[in-house]
Amino acid sequence: MNHLLTGKPEEIRALLDSVDTFLFDCDGVIWHGDNLIPNVAHVLERLREMGKRILFVSNNSTKSRRQYLKKFTQLNIEAYVNEVFGSAYAAAYYIKHNLELPDNKKVYIVGMSGIQEELDAEGIKHCGSSDDNENLTDMSEMSTIKNDPDVGAVLFGFDLDLNYKKLAKAFTYLQNPETHFLATNTDLTFPTKNAVYPGTGALLAALSTPLGRKPLVMGKPEQRMLDVIVDKYHLDRSRTCMVGDRLDTDILFGQNGGMKTLLVLTGVTPAAGLDEQEIKADFVIDSLGHLL
Amino acid sequence: MNHLLTGKPEEIRALLDSVDTFLFDCDGVIWHGDNLIPNVAHVLERLREMGKRILFVSNNSTKSRRQYLKKFTQLNIEAYVNEVFGSAYAAAYYIKHNLELPDNKKVYIVGMSGIQEELDAEGIKHCGSSDDNENLTDMSEMSTIKNDPDVGAVLFGFDLDLNYKKLAKAFTYLQNPETHFLATNTDLTFPTKNAVYPGTGALLAALSTPLGRKPLVMGKPEQRMLDVIVDKYHLDRSRTCMVGDRLDTDILFGQNGGMKTLLVLTGVTPAAGLDEQEIKADFVIDSLGHLL
Repeated sequence: MNHLLTGKPEEIRALLDSVDTFLFDCDGVIWHGDNLIPNVAHVLERLREMGKRILFVSNNSTKSRRQYLKKFTQLNIEAYVNEVFGSAYAAAYYIKHNLELPDNKKVYIVGMSGIQEELDAEGIKHCGSSDDNENLTDMSEMSTIKNDPDVGAVLFGFDLDLNYKKLAKAFTYLQNPETHFLATNTDLTFPTKNAVYPGTGALLAALSTPLGRKPLVMGKPEQRMLDVIVDKYHLDRSRTCMVGDRLDTDILFGQNGGMKTLLVLTGVTPAAGLDEQEIKADFVIDSLGHLL
Repeated sequence: MNHLLTGKPEEIRALLDSVDTFLFDCDGVIWHGDNLIPNVAHVLERLREMGKRILFVSNNSTKSRRQYLKKFTQLNIEAYVNEVFGSAYAAAYYIKHNLELPDNKKVYIVGMSGIQEELDAEGIKHCGSSDDNENLTDMSEMSTIKNDPDVGAVLFGFDLDLNYKKLAKAFTYLQNPETHFLATNTDLTFPTKNAVYPGTGALLAALSTPLGRKPLVMGKPEQRMLDVIVDKYHLDRSRTCMVGDRLDTDILFGQNGGMKTLLVLTGVTPAAGLDEQEIKADFVIDSLGHLL
């Protein structure tokens, strides 16, 4: 549809009247790296005053909700742990409530402290991650790789400290078809201010390609994270609006989830050529800061 | 065809009379890990006495020819540097003779010392590899990644010390479509005595997947390594026999190269079900040790 919001009071009122909950992607919507997008804090405040529920939904798997909250605090944005949904938390919630992993089984983590923290918070046993940051020093050490017979699932997220030992262990666990295979997200790239680097989905390919197995994916555009959110907050999907800067993750996520969608042009999607894109948002606005 | 050699003098003589050069895969054919396959040293010696040329052709990219030769010496097998073709050497030869990389340009290596050594021997400038074994320690360091403007090619091989910094640098270089992209081999797995681990092709997927680019591949079953060998030794392909234990690399490599093929059953291919396999060898023998 790509209805461009021009700021007329009646079209904004129509949108606000039809929505109880806004889900916000963060990078490119709320902030750019360490810089808050102008007037966004004010818009969020106004939405709260109107009684709208606000949730922040990010594919970033490196941070726990608590770690994520620090960023909001640093940028002086009002936010609460319970409003923040990272893919690390979604994975922990999913493992606890949906996976039926026996109590004595552990999750082998390829990923960073955010995942460890979220699994700890849900009482899920785990290993890997920082335990295996020290790599093998020699090919002959491969034979010393020890696998833990209690591992029943592998959870893969972005890991700056990815090394061969972690890949080899995860690969060995996953050769057993009974070992669950989960990934926080499959973003192929990790855009930064200066350059684009490989993302979780890129690193994951080193495991899924030789295995010929695909993981259960938590992050956008997959629906598992939304299912977790809806389950936890009993949301009415038809009265929920997903706000994001990416068509192929945020907007697709919203559409597939039966939500309204609002595309902002402060992130990776340019205004030019929007009508030629296959994925269309219900509404488009140049910046979230201009919504009200 | 899968003609099973039973050791009758006339069939062995027919094979020997039609072949001047034997190309041998090593692991599973000459040795298993650190154990020589019985009687193989004797067979190789006899072939030399008959005036046959012997070459060893391996996809292993971790070793230079010189490093590889040590293994032959340790196992008491006669061999010479000039007879050993690893994929690291094939890559160095290919870059020097076929790639037309300007003299001032460097090769960024994701790989180990064998590749560095072979590029040095051919006088090819390079960076990466052990220079980048020290990874980024923090996400914020991503912005400190410095790329060398003189890099004109990325060469990817097996790297036990693969880390995010190397992937990020290689990814950045290869976003420039003018940067050549080469890989020593694409074996998805690395079989060891006790377990199967991710191979070069698995690690490579972390780069080729987000790039949407495929590298020029040196190793079997691709023909570039054979082209290098034929070019260097002026071989008559029709009078050359590829001896290997893998149908989908060694035997396919031989067939596609217009060579005779001899499958040995001392490696990964079992005798059972050979006739149902799509790829068939000209000749099959239970062990190279039983050839003569």
